[in-house]
Amino acid sequence: MSIINVLDQGYVRLVNHMGSDLTVVNAARVSYAKQSEELSERDIRLIQFLAREGHTSPFRHAIAQFEIYAPLMVARQWWKYVVGAAHYEGTGDSLEAWNESSRRYITEEPAFYIPQAGEWRAKPESSKQGSGEPIAWELGEKHTEALMAYVELGIANYEAALQDGICAEQARLFLPSYGMYVRWYWTASVQSVAHFLSQRLEHDAQKEIQLYAKAVLELIKPLFPVSLEQLVAESHLVPQSH
Amino acid sequence: MSIINVLDQGYVRLVNHMGSDLTVVNAARVSYAKQSEELSERDIRLIQFLAREGHTSPFRHAIAQFEIYAPLMVARQWWKYVVGAAHYEGTGDSLEAWNESSRRYITEEPAFYIPQAGEWRAKPESSKQGSGEPIAWELGEKHTEALMAYVELGIANYEAALQDGICAEQARLFLPSYGMYVRWYWTASVQSVAHFLSQRLEHDAQKEIQLYAKAVLELIKPLFPVSLEQLVAESHLVPQSH
Amino acid sequence: MSIINVLDQGYVRLVNHMGSDLTVVNAARVSYAKQSEELSERDIRLIQFLAREGHTSPFRHAIAQFEIYAPLMVARQWWKYVVGAAHYEGTGDSLEAWNESSRRYITEEPAFYIPQAGEWRAKPESSKQGSGEPIAWELGEKHTEALMAYVELGIANYEAALQDGICAEQARLFLPSYGMYVRWYWTASVQSVAHFLSQRLEHDAQKEIQLYAKAVLELIKPLFPVSLEQLVAESHLVPQSH
Amino acid sequence: MSIINVLDQGYVRLVNHMGSDLTVVNAARVSYAKQSEELSERDIRLIQFLAREGHTSPFRHAIAQFEIYAPLMVARQWWKYVVGAAHYEGTGDSLEAWNESSRRYITEEPAFYIPQAGEWRAKPESSKQGSGEPIAWELGEKHTEALMAYVELGIANYEAALQDGICAEQARLFLPSYGMYVRWYWTASVQSVAHFLSQRLEHDAQKEIQLYAKAVLELIKPLFPVSLEQLVAESHLVPQSH
Repeated sequence: MSIINVLDQGYVRLVNHMGSDLTVVNAARVSYAKQSEELSERDIRLIQFLAREGHTSPFRHAIAQFEIYAPLMVARQWWKYVVGAAHYEGTGDSLEAWNESSRRYITEEPAFYIPQAGEWRAKPESSKQGSGEPIAWELGEKHTEALMAYVELGIANYEAALQDGICAEQARLFLPSYGMYVRWYWTASVQSVAHFLSQRLEHDAQKEIQLYAKAVLELIKPLFPVSLEQLVAESHLVPQSH
Repeated sequence: MSIINVLDQGYVRLVNHMGSDLTVVNAARVSYAKQSEELSERDIRLIQFLAREGHTSPFRHAIAQFEIYAPLMVARQWWKYVVGAAHYEGTGDSLEAWNESSRRYITEEPAFYIPQAGEWRAKPESSKQGSGEPIAWELGEKHTEALMAYVELGIANYEAALQDGICAEQARLFLPSYGMYVRWYWTASVQSVAHFLSQRLEHDAQKEIQLYAKAVLELIKPLFPVSLEQLVAESHLVPQSH
Repeated sequence: MSIINVLDQGYVRLVNHMGSDLTVVNAARVSYAKQSEELSERDIRLIQFLAREGHTSPFRHAIAQFEIYAPLMVARQWWKYVVGAAHYEGTGDSLEAWNESSRRYITEEPAFYIPQAGEWRAKPESSKQGSGEPIAWELGEKHTEALMAYVELGIANYEAALQDGICAEQARLFLPSYGMYVRWYWTASVQSVAHFLSQRLEHDAQKEIQLYAKAVLELIKPLFPVSLEQLVAESHLVPQSH
Repeated sequence: MSIINVLDQGYVRLVNHMGSDLTVVNAARVSYAKQSEELSERDIRLIQFLAREGHTSPFRHAIAQFEIYAPLMVARQWWKYVVGAAHYEGTGDSLEAWNESSRRYITEEPAFYIPQAGEWRAKPESSKQGSGEPIAWELGEKHTEALMAYVELGIANYEAALQDGICAEQARLFLPSYGMYVRWYWTASVQSVAHFLSQRLEHDAQKEIQLYAKAVLELIKPLFPVSLEQLVAESHLVPQSH
């Protein structure tokens, strides 16, 4: 299946892709006017060589396209990566699309991520981590309920403001937007996706974005198996219990 | 003064700059091995020519640096410009800095933008505008009070969550973050600043970001007067009543 | 056919592509959670609207991939566009690949572009043009012969240097490299290709790169017909006598 | 002095700069609303931390500006870095300026890099190197003379073509352009310069560009001493016999 559910309402959907591991090989060999039609042992060794030596540019010619539905706080960290580290890909537009949808213009009904009682995490023991172990269930239950009530009140305030004729770009001040779901397209090269995965599968990434990164990996791995195996650290490739 | 206050608690501060209108001229003439020491009539005509013909690359060698304190919804639109349109400048990092400060790690006390009674705007009459005229004062007063109460409740919930040991990256789900103030550095070329101004001084930009754009223009105009006059539309250069 | 010959030995080959005009529509509508399966009249009007209003980001999600074989002076102007104007796409690597192939390491036998007697052009009458009308055939014949001899001598010197053990990175000083053929991969979005075409189909672009741009247009137009019609000026879409 | 000569006719000139090591510290601390006025021990440890952990974005707010005069083959490798690795800086324009100057329009008299008898290098013993030891002086002398004659003949052909009315964009096919000097402006952040240095001071970089990189390092090191010490490998900071 080309869609994987994440969190209470989110998902990652594989929309399209272009090329295969062969694309990487052919882009790398373009100056030799040679083209492979089938992935040979020699081609695999070339991919290993390119990844090991940091010659990652041929991996930019293989492309994947995703549709993502995630809380704004996840989307923001996703962009941070896109902006700070890549600048290579035509990924900027996902931002455009997303920003337009986020309450400056009224579109969908707002939807919010609400952690369940067992999903609240303690603060980390070391500053190398984003968060620690789950907190006590009863405590979690209390905050889940508080958040549900707070989100409900925010939506009520937001709708009252719209009702009174206030423009959407100001009415949204009432929304607890870190948890608000947004939806965007992400078109990125294998190089870029691998870089994103290397950062966002790390233990110090926010748990919520780690879950999205795992979904991306699961969807893209069968399409470019040799490349992903070389570009993503082994520890991240081993299936983990969610 | 090198600082201009914007909204209830925000500001734009000019931190530094490099070069002058002469820099643009010298960068454009580099291939002729000629260098001007003082801005002549001929140099001014060259700047006019470059702007008119769209040869804006020499404007990338003159640089300005700002520190900005603004609500997250303003920051997001600022980036959208940076990401979607520029990709030329070393501006990506402002984003990094900002993201880190926005409640994943606890830093400053959260501060929020609260429009005053007379500052709430109606929805636009045409879709070409972001918002319309101010709404009735009494109505505005009601929503200002509602927003103050809502923000206060959010902060209380947020602090209760931290108190109960929940990690900051989840506790922030309680914050109505569109209005939350964030602070970042922006280092950009004159080309990039002019492009930002051209978009954000337009009547369809959100009013709040227009106010920040006016502050940027006021701070940078004396440093690169000829360049700004050529790159920014005349209608935006005329001082307007705020 | 997916390959078009250009100049005496060059070509443009369509290697692959991802998406269609529908991709643009779906990327633009992502925030509405709507997806088209077939291009309707309404979808066409949306593409027209996006192009007219300059909302070109959805065009970045539709991708084309080319292999190009062209003289270095054409390749350099191609990059100039890529570097100066795009920065959006994963196109940087074509450059990497190309640079490596261009005589620092010995790969293919060097091949050179030699204009035929009737292909030499006069200097332009106006500075708005890159070149003017063809020069007299006899004059052209003289320079074609001179260039053939000069290139031959360069290759002989280059090979003598290699023969004497000189490294390739220095031996290439003997090659008249503006006309030397290089080969590269170019993976770019429809937005990026359209921008390249808008610049390189212009009458002031060098004639040789105009011919390559026409080949790119011919190959990509059937894949994204509505988008290209909107993004590229009408005058460039009318078939012209070469 | 702010200018260092490189090769037979080239140079690197420091044109301007913005900021200091303090700029890096202040950009990194922006989210804490703290600003240093003088570089303390604590600030130095922060710079060490940022470099060690790869949080290089604060280094993008400190800027340096150079004018460079170098053979085209050096310029091309410089760009390759700029295009392939940075995309962060407003450096694209140097390319614009340079490309325009390189013989499509007639500007300066063409000047060429001619290695002296003792400067020709053998091919490398290992593929990890670009070149090996100097070749025998007599052999070098032969090729220096051959190159001088070849360049002279090229210029004569080029001028004959111009004389016969051929446009400059075609006449340049006669120039052995790898060695042709071009001049450009480079405005780049400390992050970007450090990255360039890390690559171009390496033993496998072409010797000629290593010499330019050393000149850049010598000019920029006194301006941002702590940052450069952290970002550039120690082995490159030790003065070496040229």
